[in-house]
Amino acid sequence: MKNIPWQERPKNCNDVMWRYSENPIIDRYAIPTSNSIFNSAVVPFEDGFAGVFRCDNRAVQMNIFAGFSKDAIHWNINHEPITMQTGNTQLVHSDYRYDPRVTFIEDRYWITWCNGYEGAPTIGLAYTFDFKEFYQCENAFLPFNRNGVLFPQKINGKYAMLSRPSDNGHTPFGDIYISYSPDMKYWGEHRCVMKVTPFADSAWQCTKIGAGAVPILTKEGWLLLYHGVIQTCNGFRYSMGGAILDKNQPDKVLYRSQPYLLAPAAPYELAGDVPNVVFPCAALHSEEEDKLAVYYGAADTVVSMAFGRLSEVVKFIKENSLS
Amino acid sequence: MKNIPWQERPKNCNDVMWRYSENPIIDRYAIPTSNSIFNSAVVPFEDGFAGVFRCDNRAVQMNIFAGFSKDAIHWNINHEPITMQTGNTQLVHSDYRYDPRVTFIEDRYWITWCNGYEGAPTIGLAYTFDFKEFYQCENAFLPFNRNGVLFPQKINGKYAMLSRPSDNGHTPFGDIYISYSPDMKYWGEHRCVMKVTPFADSAWQCTKIGAGAVPILTKEGWLLLYHGVIQTCNGFRYSMGGAILDKNQPDKVLYRSQPYLLAPAAPYELAGDVPNVVFPCAALHSEEEDKLAVYYGAADTVVSMAFGRLSEVVKFIKENSLS
Amino acid sequence: MKNIPWQERPKNCNDVMWRYSENPIIDRYAIPTSNSIFNSAVVPFEDGFAGVFRCDNRAVQMNIFAGFSKDAIHWNINHEPITMQTGNTQLVHSDYRYDPRVTFIEDRYWITWCNGYEGAPTIGLAYTFDFKEFYQCENAFLPFNRNGVLFPQKINGKYAMLSRPSDNGHTPFGDIYISYSPDMKYWGEHRCVMKVTPFADSAWQCTKIGAGAVPILTKEGWLLLYHGVIQTCNGFRYSMGGAILDKNQPDKVLYRSQPYLLAPAAPYELAGDVPNVVFPCAALHSEEEDKLAVYYGAADTVVSMAFGRLSEVVKFIKENSLS
Amino acid sequence: MKNIPWQERPKNCNDVMWRYSENPIIDRYAIPTSNSIFNSAVVPFEDGFAGVFRCDNRAVQMNIFAGFSKDAIHWNINHEPITMQTGNTQLVHSDYRYDPRVTFIEDRYWITWCNGYEGAPTIGLAYTFDFKEFYQCENAFLPFNRNGVLFPQKINGKYAMLSRPSDNGHTPFGDIYISYSPDMKYWGEHRCVMKVTPFADSAWQCTKIGAGAVPILTKEGWLLLYHGVIQTCNGFRYSMGGAILDKNQPDKVLYRSQPYLLAPAAPYELAGDVPNVVFPCAALHSEEEDKLAVYYGAADTVVSMAFGRLSEVVKFIKENSLS
Amino acid sequence: MKNIPWQERPKNCNDVMWRYSENPIIDRYAIPTSNSIFNSAVVPFEDGFAGVFRCDNRAVQMNIFAGFSKDAIHWNINHEPITMQTGNTQLVHSDYRYDPRVTFIEDRYWITWCNGYEGAPTIGLAYTFDFKEFYQCENAFLPFNRNGVLFPQKINGKYAMLSRPSDNGHTPFGDIYISYSPDMKYWGEHRCVMKVTPFADSAWQCTKIGAGAVPILTKEGWLLLYHGVIQTCNGFRYSMGGAILDKNQPDKVLYRSQPYLLAPAAPYELAGDVPNVVFPCAALHSEEEDKLAVYYGAADTVVSMAFGRLSEVVKFIKENSLS
Amino acid sequence: MKNIPWQERPKNCNDVMWRYSENPIIDRYAIPTSNSIFNSAVVPFEDGFAGVFRCDNRAVQMNIFAGFSKDAIHWNINHEPITMQTGNTQLVHSDYRYDPRVTFIEDRYWITWCNGYEGAPTIGLAYTFDFKEFYQCENAFLPFNRNGVLFPQKINGKYAMLSRPSDNGHTPFGDIYISYSPDMKYWGEHRCVMKVTPFADSAWQCTKIGAGAVPILTKEGWLLLYHGVIQTCNGFRYSMGGAILDKNQPDKVLYRSQPYLLAPAAPYELAGDVPNVVFPCAALHSEEEDKLAVYYGAADTVVSMAFGRLSEVVKFIKENSLS
Repeated sequence: MKNIPWQERPKNCNDVMWRYSENPIIDRYAIPTSNSIFNSAVVPFEDGFAGVFRCDNRAVQMNIFAGFSKDAIHWNINHEPITMQTGNTQLVHSDYRYDPRVTFIEDRYWITWCNGYEGAPTIGLAYTFDFKEFYQCENAFLPFNRNGVLFPQKINGKYAMLSRPSDNGHTPFGDIYISYSPDMKYWGEHRCVMKVTPFADSAWQCTKIGAGAVPILTKEGWLLLYHGVIQTCNGFRYSMGGAILDKNQPDKVLYRSQPYLLAPAAPYELAGDVPNVVFPCAALHSEEEDKLAVYYGAADTVVSMAFGRLSEVVKFIKENSLS
Repeated sequence: MKNIPWQERPKNCNDVMWRYSENPIIDRYAIPTSNSIFNSAVVPFEDGFAGVFRCDNRAVQMNIFAGFSKDAIHWNINHEPITMQTGNTQLVHSDYRYDPRVTFIEDRYWITWCNGYEGAPTIGLAYTFDFKEFYQCENAFLPFNRNGVLFPQKINGKYAMLSRPSDNGHTPFGDIYISYSPDMKYWGEHRCVMKVTPFADSAWQCTKIGAGAVPILTKEGWLLLYHGVIQTCNGFRYSMGGAILDKNQPDKVLYRSQPYLLAPAAPYELAGDVPNVVFPCAALHSEEEDKLAVYYGAADTVVSMAFGRLSEVVKFIKENSLS
Repeated sequence: MKNIPWQERPKNCNDVMWRYSENPIIDRYAIPTSNSIFNSAVVPFEDGFAGVFRCDNRAVQMNIFAGFSKDAIHWNINHEPITMQTGNTQLVHSDYRYDPRVTFIEDRYWITWCNGYEGAPTIGLAYTFDFKEFYQCENAFLPFNRNGVLFPQKINGKYAMLSRPSDNGHTPFGDIYISYSPDMKYWGEHRCVMKVTPFADSAWQCTKIGAGAVPILTKEGWLLLYHGVIQTCNGFRYSMGGAILDKNQPDKVLYRSQPYLLAPAAPYELAGDVPNVVFPCAALHSEEEDKLAVYYGAADTVVSMAFGRLSEVVKFIKENSLS
Repeated sequence: MKNIPWQERPKNCNDVMWRYSENPIIDRYAIPTSNSIFNSAVVPFEDGFAGVFRCDNRAVQMNIFAGFSKDAIHWNINHEPITMQTGNTQLVHSDYRYDPRVTFIEDRYWITWCNGYEGAPTIGLAYTFDFKEFYQCENAFLPFNRNGVLFPQKINGKYAMLSRPSDNGHTPFGDIYISYSPDMKYWGEHRCVMKVTPFADSAWQCTKIGAGAVPILTKEGWLLLYHGVIQTCNGFRYSMGGAILDKNQPDKVLYRSQPYLLAPAAPYELAGDVPNVVFPCAALHSEEEDKLAVYYGAADTVVSMAFGRLSEVVKFIKENSLS
Repeated sequence: MKNIPWQERPKNCNDVMWRYSENPIIDRYAIPTSNSIFNSAVVPFEDGFAGVFRCDNRAVQMNIFAGFSKDAIHWNINHEPITMQTGNTQLVHSDYRYDPRVTFIEDRYWITWCNGYEGAPTIGLAYTFDFKEFYQCENAFLPFNRNGVLFPQKINGKYAMLSRPSDNGHTPFGDIYISYSPDMKYWGEHRCVMKVTPFADSAWQCTKIGAGAVPILTKEGWLLLYHGVIQTCNGFRYSMGGAILDKNQPDKVLYRSQPYLLAPAAPYELAGDVPNVVFPCAALHSEEEDKLAVYYGAADTVVSMAFGRLSEVVKFIKENSLS
Repeated sequence: MKNIPWQERPKNCNDVMWRYSENPIIDRYAIPTSNSIFNSAVVPFEDGFAGVFRCDNRAVQMNIFAGFSKDAIHWNINHEPITMQTGNTQLVHSDYRYDPRVTFIEDRYWITWCNGYEGAPTIGLAYTFDFKEFYQCENAFLPFNRNGVLFPQKINGKYAMLSRPSDNGHTPFGDIYISYSPDMKYWGEHRCVMKVTPFADSAWQCTKIGAGAVPILTKEGWLLLYHGVIQTCNGFRYSMGGAILDKNQPDKVLYRSQPYLLAPAAPYELAGDVPNVVFPCAALHSEEEDKLAVYYGAADTVVSMAFGRLSEVVKFIKENSLS
């Protein structure tokens, strides 16, 4: 991929990833009804980019909206939420929708999100060809689940999805699992991929973890950007880490960063509706240009970006891996 | 079915179901290693009966054991737990196993239970032809789940299972869901069947509910015996209720008992390892003889039985149904 | 009062109060629909006795029922709950009703109970002349409140009620307050009467306390029988204590028993729907015959009685009073 | 009323209410002993304005102070807290005092606040003619209660007060009730006015709500500005909404805003002693000039102001009302 | 030791330990003021036996009392609690005292108990020569601590004490530690001895554990009888297990029973002030006669006994040891 | 001491202590691996200053690092954590290390810190002569403990340490105790020094308190700077107070500040990894120059400084003392 949004590493910065100097790229009030816009996903689309955005309105109702951009930094987000048509199910139903991800597989774009079904969160699933017409499919799993992220290609002939089984509240636990499907409707072969770390080994990811961006296939395996959470005496703190999963058997973790890649420190990450949150949901990359651009929600309030060299990020994870 | 275990309603008893006068039928120490035997399932087998029993040992490790009986009241339970061979998976793994149910479908007996996988409870699945050789299959769902109960026949060409998504502790919430599978390996089409009731409507089932015995097909639909829980200031109290589900669309509840059918009152239900528990896991019935015999765990310590006239139980549920 | 129900102190018993040997006097299934009958109140009525009884049905819905007796021990309880007509309000409304008390003042019997209003517990208030027609009045207070108990005569020209402000759950705190009203409609002059004790002083009443029976006027002042609660590692334990309040200024506690008068020890108190509960709601007394007969709920399941010599109980409280 | 403090809507602002550009108007250290000054109330007084202010001192003891202003923006707050004389009671007692409101009725100014009585919060009540001499009355209710707000005139011949029954901690629940009194001493006829909303309908007010400013009589009915709370994974977030209550029967809600009117977004609202708090306690208005000026506590640290057109606010509530 | 209290194993009993048929040996009301007598310790003394007993009075104040017996089964317990003189400290102070143990070392009897110091539980320490005069020493540790148990002889020239660091409530965690002292005043060299087990390995001891009886020196090492706790959905359940510690380095666990030795099953263990408690505090043994007699509190209400063959108990622990 | 870092009180500032205008003095990323640097301790050393710093790395592992400075404001912190050699124990073991204090006694510098032992926090102890070689000693106490602070000289011939017994989580309770040792190995004579205050007396220190800087000997006694915590509805808030302890019997509190000396208000205190934290760990002082310079962690993220006149601080504590 070319035309990837990019800003070089600042002078005197030695970090493996760095923030965009114009952060946040999307303000909380960017559409007329919004209270906050964050935890959103983007992909290359036609000659530019498309995305699915979490916009909470001023009744603090959570919903997902389509948006378009020429440069992947300046976005036009629709003022009306996405409406769904029937995909592989008659069940087109959502009490609420949040934290979308978007994955292109074969011939279409798949959207996963946290879907309110009978008041309980689970993984919603839909596809689109054009970001205008969306086709909702069966929920992937039973409640309670969040952070469903599809791999961008079939693995051993099956679709593969990461997710985080949880409960119905502000869950203080959560590990990453993988599940497979022959048809995007029936799911099985559930395997545990990564668990939270012992406090003493890597405390930023000791309370819960969840998949972030769609995994990126590198020579080393799948690069998974994920969030990890620590519970301080003043609530949860969300940071971003990275892992390398085996190419053909992705429940096998080859490397996993002991240090975080990015953690709340900028003012727009430290203060907002939920202080101290860095929550990645998408990434653009160019292997050719060795670029990685990550989109993350900041403080559950705005969308921000961070950049890194793809090869450096992979190398950093390998060299700083939990044993 | 004939030869159903039976005892007539006591004089002066007007209740729709009544306890067996020789309860408990299985003592907590019935096998040499057991601390308690409860929450167990039985089925007709050859010219008698077979069953799968939850026996916690004196390390309070939970496991399941096969057993046999001529009269369905006096049981010989194996002294060694069930061992598994590979069914449709290489993953023959259980941190722990508890609360089994047994269902005969087509040509074999299917066992479901709460299966510890990576320390997290989910629904284990296995089959047997003879209660000697057991073949473990893929776990049906992601954690966290309990009380998986299969229907005794395919519905609309698919296997159907009830379950209760939950979390990793003594969950104070839980509704009954149904899921379908074409092949006992991949599961989807998850639907909510019944939720807990408002406190003011039927308090004994206001905290959590879970499927109990394998559903029984009657003229009115599927008779589901289930447990309901209320949280008192001294902990949980488990009682048994009944519902009638639509024959062809069993996520549709036709009737559901507002009063309980049986609630803790006998000494062996009020005191034991967990006081105040009536927990049904199996039922034998004869439509011809109009008999229903329910097996339930009492106080998480012993196995007991209760009887009723099948037609009266169905009628009672209809006439005392929650609107 | 004569004809008070009575049984002499057993030989070898040195306790200030003792249990009736035929306890429980009312079984949990005494009326066809009941799951449990407990926490109930009785008064002399015509040539015998009348009462208001808490009967939870088998949907575990809580309601109050009238009943009648010749000897105050054997009771006929109506099979239908009390229905209300309008008293001093149009608001005749109860989500649920439990833990009634009955007080005769001037020309009528007043009933107080815990009344569910908009899902929140507060003090319901009604009167009757004949235990057939009941007239519901304004709720005495805002939610959240329980254990409202009226004094049997006006104090300084005003009606007076004890109550225990609390919250909407299984409240782990609670003190006794008094409030006054000129007209049984508007309430004010709220004063704190008694608080829980420090753990080291009298642990059985260190978590919460609530008024029990209607206060009895003695030469020493008002004798208040109340319940106290300790939280053990297996839940709450409810016992009965006694206090003497100043005759003219009843927010002034003259004496208060450091030891309990009665605590769970009998089998029907140790096991039941809520183990370890002794909960007094009424008392009959004869100053002339020096008799006291207390009615208490046992294990939230049945009604039991305990007896004592009125003078001895008062003396015991004085001599064992918390400083 | 004329002379209302005012600042026009900023250009490019489409919001129904907007912040004062010089916020906060009162700094946390505005008097020598203060740690924070917030949640305070103001009224027109003589040729200027008077107010009652919550000032926590540097021992973080909560108390209320009188203050005066010519323009309602720049305030002189007394350095000593308000002292009380006896009003309709001898009980002049406060463990602590916080969150005052002020209402002019007939001939005097009434102050309500959260009053610590025997360690428990309830509604304190006092009146003054001159903001120099204050006369404390009976607490309006039993504990536990907060956010008592009087209507500025009698309704059907009785005084009327809104309040929020709660418990003794950081209550995670709370609805708005109304109570009436013939004499400001005895209170009754308690009715539920508004409850929290389902999460899916209007999440910002799904955990607890409480009356804010003294209701304003408009042609549509009583305009009630109130606070609503959502519990995020990092604690409570307080926002401001509006409702229209029926003029003659104010427990009847005619309209209620689904979106909030103002929610934490400015730096002084996002950071402070308690982050993410917008808490209205008073409003000035001029129907003639169509102006509304709201005083609110920000982050439990400072006093801020927001403005709106009265007619627009009412219209906004009607057009964005919860069904 | 001879004259050990004893009752042979019942016929048909295959358990390694069995209950005394006349249990409980001490009733809850055995002294005039007692509400309950349990968790108590006995030792051989002169030509009979002496003991220190936990008697909670009817204010549920916890205290310790001396008692004497000829046969170690029938006891005369003093009606007044133990009073203390100064030992190695001026601090003779106890808010409350409970769960005593008694150990004879060299020339005197040492008593340890849970001692309330500034409202916080820690380990109290005293000695006596005659069970009439008691000399209180420095508390062994800082709060919060419980279940301090001394070894009956010095180890490597130092006194040694087991204890369970904990917190100030109904602690849901707790491991056994050992500490050493040159002089019974200053303590150090703290080492972890045993931790709770993973749920899947031995659930009855997965929540907290604490030393029970004074360790018994056998050929295999120190036999430690201890309690283990599991948290069920209806509270804690306390059982008894056994471990063998290295003779010279007792923080080294040689064997530890995976199954329990005794768990609540008898009626007096299942019901009482705290249901489901077996809590050992003392043991008598005769290596010569191969007898072991254990004293344990049942249901926090009474004192009971269980017997076993010393050699069989040691063998059982070795053969059923956690790896 | 001379050369104390210093900045005069700002004009118009009347506070007893004031912040350094260049705060924070140490940035969160001051060493390459750090996520945050805070809660650190400094002492005069040779012709400048040395310190021990808490640096959490980007795996959020907590560790302690040595550092050096000429002016006590600009610091060079080592990039590698402190390594330990054996002091008075073979147990050189730390799961984690945080919140160090440094005290010079007689001939060496003693370091105390919160030390992870078997996963449980307790007080680690080490000494150094040169801040290059460190010698780890026995942990001072059993778990669970935090905030161990040594006095700078023996008291009555014994070493003396303040500490805060606690539990294994984000403890919502905690008082300050003192313990003595003849040899820095065995500890005893534990005494309670100060407890949390009642909410109504001084709310900022009503939840937990802990020693901060090494006590400073003044003419009035030991000046102890400590932290106090209040629990708001959005978590804990840490402020700094001061107390004067008796010179020879330091468990005797002579004076204790009712108001705080410094509380979170600056931006770097209000936002960071844990908002609203002021946590003192060290102080430099010159009695001659009447100067006091305090080092405190801000928001668990950076190190900041505050200044005051030593005599004024003592006077302030005396004049604003809790009775």
